[in-house]
Amino acid sequence: MTHYQKLLRISTTGKSFHNITSKVEAIVAESGVKTGLCTLFLRHTSASLVIQENADPDVLTDLANFMAKLVPEGNYYIHDAEGPDDMPGHIRSVLTHTSEHIPINNGHLVLGTWQGIYVWEHRQRSHTRELVVHISA
Amino acid sequence: MTHYQKLLRISTTGKSFHNITSKVEAIVAESGVKTGLCTLFLRHTSASLVIQENADPDVLTDLANFMAKLVPEGNYYIHDAEGPDDMPGHIRSVLTHTSEHIPINNGHLVLGTWQGIYVWEHRQRSHTRELVVHISA
Amino acid sequence: MTHYQKLLRISTTGKSFHNITSKVEAIVAESGVKTGLCTLFLRHTSASLVIQENADPDVLTDLANFMAKLVPEGNYYIHDAEGPDDMPGHIRSVLTHTSEHIPINNGHLVLGTWQGIYVWEHRQRSHTRELVVHISA
Repeated sequence: MTHYQKLLRISTTGKSFHNITSKVEAIVAESGVKTGLCTLFLRHTSASLVIQENADPDVLTDLANFMAKLVPEGNYYIHDAEGPDDMPGHIRSVLTHTSEHIPINNGHLVLGTWQGIYVWEHRQRSHTRELVVHISA
Repeated sequence: MTHYQKLLRISTTGKSFHNITSKVEAIVAESGVKTGLCTLFLRHTSASLVIQENADPDVLTDLANFMAKLVPEGNYYIHDAEGPDDMPGHIRSVLTHTSEHIPINNGHLVLGTWQGIYVWEHRQRSHTRELVVHISA
Repeated sequence: MTHYQKLLRISTTGKSFHNITSKVEAIVAESGVKTGLCTLFLRHTSASLVIQENADPDVLTDLANFMAKLVPEGNYYIHDAEGPDDMPGHIRSVLTHTSEHIPINNGHLVLGTWQGIYVWEHRQRSHTRELVVHISA
């Protein structure tokens, strides 16, 4: 069995979605793996991973609006030393995903036509987020 | 290492849960794998995967009722060109799972006694949903 | 390919978070695997897995408070034969995770500095929860 690992650094610009699909596809190509499994692991607890529609950007806006309402910022949390956006970020991360997994077939991720892979930054400030891309074959 | 991949097509009947446990178990048996890992990947963004109780069907009804209230249909979303059930479907998919993973031991999934694997259709109309079953051994 | 599997039994003390990071690290060490993938699978539908901040315990209290409000106990559910905390437990489990996955590099989980792995018990009574630790290399 081959394990191919690479660390990606994603520069986020405050609360935002970053489409990393082509970056991950490039690592799959680089690995030379034709049939296997690609695991993504984000080394953070106030940013997360989602696989969502890659066509209409309004989908991402609606997602962000929904989450802002479901997990509001404000004076609701005990853990507030790192700012009002920190604890909501932790909760949003728990409600979405720290890891994602996409099988590889014929040298490509088996994503559906409308699926993109996103890093979702939940903090207000820009961050550099570390993502481990792990390919097993 | 062996990778065994199969594409399942699941015909959904509008908003509903489809128990796919026995279909996945059949593919595990077919693969001949005794110890390994089974990854399920759904190629869609308005349907999702959950592992839930397989005994009392009321559990699924309560889940559906909860989600209908948490992520309501209606005039709340910018992305509405595909109907009032589309954007809620995307959000419900993000709050649940696009992939699931169950270790294989002694030729069987290590599911607990009360665990079943479900495809959860979030759209009102019937769809054919593609699920990649990936077994690594 | 090597698959190394071990069953952990976690004794929970009613609604609570149990940090299992060091237990999982010990199994990784025992396996001798230097580069690979660690999959955790919980064999239950009213407890779940989360990866969250391991520094300030207030983060876990805030998480618990948020979930208690989002998925309240009470007379809201059809499935109530097993007590008022059972159906909320199922929903909380669906909104979080039944499996988690952490790549292994240089013999260690690639967790970020602030990440811990937790079993989250959603029931009021103590339970023994079975967790399958699966390492592939």
